[in-house]
Amino acid sequence: MARPTIVDIARAAGVSKGAVSFALNGRPGVSDKTRARVQQVAAEMGWLPNVAARSLAGTRAGAIGLVFARSADTLSAEPFFMRLIAGIESELSLRSVALVFQVVTDHTAEIATYRRWAAERRVDGLLVVDPFVDDDRIGPLDELAMPSVFVGVPPSDDLVAGVWSDDATSMSQVLKHLVGLGHKRVVRVAGSNNHQHVQVRNETFRRISAELGLDEAMIVETDYTAEQGAQATRAILMSPRPPSAIIYDNDVMAVAGLGVTQQLRIDVPGELSLVAWDDSQMCRICHPTMTALGRDIENFGATAASLLLDMLDGQPPRKIETPAGVLIARGSTGPVDAQMHTTPR
Amino acid sequence: MARPTIVDIARAAGVSKGAVSFALNGRPGVSDKTRARVQQVAAEMGWLPNVAARSLAGTRAGAIGLVFARSADTLSAEPFFMRLIAGIESELSLRSVALVFQVVTDHTAEIATYRRWAAERRVDGLLVVDPFVDDDRIGPLDELAMPSVFVGVPPSDDLVAGVWSDDATSMSQVLKHLVGLGHKRVVRVAGSNNHQHVQVRNETFRRISAELGLDEAMIVETDYTAEQGAQATRAILMSPRPPSAIIYDNDVMAVAGLGVTQQLRIDVPGELSLVAWDDSQMCRICHPTMTALGRDIENFGATAASLLLDMLDGQPPRKIETPAGVLIARGSTGPVDAQMHTTPR
Repeated sequence: MARPTIVDIARAAGVSKGAVSFALNGRPGVSDKTRARVQQVAAEMGWLPNVAARSLAGTRAGAIGLVFARSADTLSAEPFFMRLIAGIESELSLRSVALVFQVVTDHTAEIATYRRWAAERRVDGLLVVDPFVDDDRIGPLDELAMPSVFVGVPPSDDLVAGVWSDDATSMSQVLKHLVGLGHKRVVRVAGSNNHQHVQVRNETFRRISAELGLDEAMIVETDYTAEQGAQATRAILMSPRPPSAIIYDNDVMAVAGLGVTQQLRIDVPGELSLVAWDDSQMCRICHPTMTALGRDIENFGATAASLLLDMLDGQPPRKIETPAGVLIARGSTGPVDAQMHTTPR
Repeated sequence: MARPTIVDIARAAGVSKGAVSFALNGRPGVSDKTRARVQQVAAEMGWLPNVAARSLAGTRAGAIGLVFARSADTLSAEPFFMRLIAGIESELSLRSVALVFQVVTDHTAEIATYRRWAAERRVDGLLVVDPFVDDDRIGPLDELAMPSVFVGVPPSDDLVAGVWSDDATSMSQVLKHLVGLGHKRVVRVAGSNNHQHVQVRNETFRRISAELGLDEAMIVETDYTAEQGAQATRAILMSPRPPSAIIYDNDVMAVAGLGVTQQLRIDVPGELSLVAWDDSQMCRICHPTMTALGRDIENFGATAASLLLDMLDGQPPRKIETPAGVLIARGSTGPVDAQMHTTPR
């Protein structure tokens, strides 16, 4: 007997096609009794569950892959990653696609994982995070012919799909907020310059600082950890001409920087304003609360997942720009006390 | 032609069995050239990749499932979850087992996901997090005959496998530290009483408080969010007889509580000591730094994954107690100023 269709099963079980779909896909919408009957009828008719059937037919694994090449400590410290996953999930669950997820230590292990998944036909496509300069993952991905979407500023290659957010508009908002409060010297504590999005933010920071007539735009590079965020803050505040405002590249470093100001008894926002890139609960619970650039990270993840699923359905690779973040002004930014910053501290 | 074995492929390609295994599983250990040759030979001989082959043979999906039924906001706020995943991954990657991961809104959707995965033969087993009182996931899991390990205090049922940590020893450490500093009134800000582990911690808190001769052990129930952590702290500090120390059930609430003390201008640790259950970067970067109960959450996740994989290899379900956390004394706990706490604030 040929593989039964949903229509065959619906007829045999005396229920609607929709009910069969709900029952066999484990979704709400049918009673437990109906579900049990449909499952029994389907089993008797030799219905083959999806994953095995699709793999056998050489079509779909019904899953996409995501690898984070970061230490567990970095991943757990930055709320960004879990929000990104939640956004990805929101889109996948609509289409009953599974997420296969792995945390590895470096890009070599990441590429090995992609090869293994391809060999096992484990996933149909990949979401590739943290695009970096001269990204050496593009070659292996091409070779594996695995549909992939870069999450973050994608490589310029036309055939590479990606989603990113409009960091220029975001940076402009942040700097205009600070200039509006009278700030003239602003320092940016950036993530690693190897990341594409960090380079973009650095360039925009320099360009817009110049446009707004700010003093020399200084950038300090870090590895995104609280430790380096704190260290950078200390070095900046001890320098001969400390700034009146600091913009951090993530929430973790901003809150760590706030801790340093408390140790040094520097009043925030009286003597120094702080801004975090990416809002999080951490920014809302510190004291003073942290002014932050809030982005819709869930939407960012959902857009990436949706683009990948479209590609699996035969659509061409695209590049999609998601909306810029919105500045959320809180307690950590305030007007410059002019006298305090005319002379070095 | 029958499905070729690794030995057949090794002979045809003129390489070792190990090299074939490395090449086909996408693992390091062979040159790119050898990998390419082995893959070509294997393809010519009709080698069927693992996932499809295993599903077809009705054996293994080669993956285990994990569902978080929490809001994206809670997940991203608590570093616990990503550390747990990292620990799970560390064990899975050793055995080339994939993690299929889904975030859903509630337990109904969680159970629906388990049903769907079972219908699709998507996973071989499940890690079930956040065990709760009268856990209604046990019935469906039994029905699906899906090997499962509960992560956190497992249900008492002999057939249910689980891992948990020794919260009694941890609680004893925390309370002895506070008593050693002269504290007599300690309040616990707990998570939801529906969770098994919260009940266990509540009972231990009451028992050990009594053993150590502390004043009436007060417990305030919350939902683990920063908002309720802050609210509980405010209520506790405004009460007629405020305590000299507060123990929080997670790091997020403890740091939120610290924010409240700063707003109320209550000196920590001069007037009030704070302790967080579960250490995190957040505890290390706030000011003062937060005394915390540090658990090896990665090991907790790895132990759970290892137990599940053993069960998939035919071992019986077990219950495994992982080591107690270790108290990390930092700036947020200090000696009681006796005068300050003899009269209500």
